Amino acid sequence: MKYTAHINVMPLKELLDPQGKAVNNSLHNLGLTNINEVRIGKHITLQLEAASKDEAEQMAREACKKLLANQVMEAFDVTLAEG
Amino acid sequence: MKYTAHINVMPLKELLDPQGKAVNNSLHNLGLTNINEVRIGKHITLQLEAASKDEAEQMAREACKKLLANQVMEAFDVTLAEG
Repeated sequence: MKYTAHINVMPLKELLDPQGKAVNNSLHNLGLTNINEVRIGKHITLQLEAASKDEAEQMAREACKKLLANQVMEAFDVTLAEG
Repeated sequence: MKYTAHINVMPLKELLDPQGKAVNNSLHNLGLTNINEVRIGKHITLQLEAASKDEAEQMAREACKKLLANQVMEAFDVTLAEG
């Protein structure tokens, strides 16, 4: 069966996020001063061919651990949808 | 009130995504051959101070249009949660 995985890879909460900080400042300069705590990570979508949803999730997590996320600095979460 | 916005900025479906293509090939080289159609974008979280959820959503969309997304090449979606 076909599944679509939506994966978010975000910098760990304990770490500074200089890119987010820079964007935060730029938003303030643009007049959007009610916005704070900007953090920027990656959003990845991919299609999986798997026998079951469990197998698809396992595959997506393996992809995250092996390539998509650097677990020293980043956390990931995986959401799966059919089709 | 405080809201948290989760924003995804993805390359438009009509456009090639060379980063996604490269990751797709790397996943195949790692043995994950059942994964395809990898597309990579940004995931942004930020906190908003707004009077209502509608106002918060408007503010988040303004931030996307002004800074976070390049609408010539990217599409964005915004999800809001309280707190």
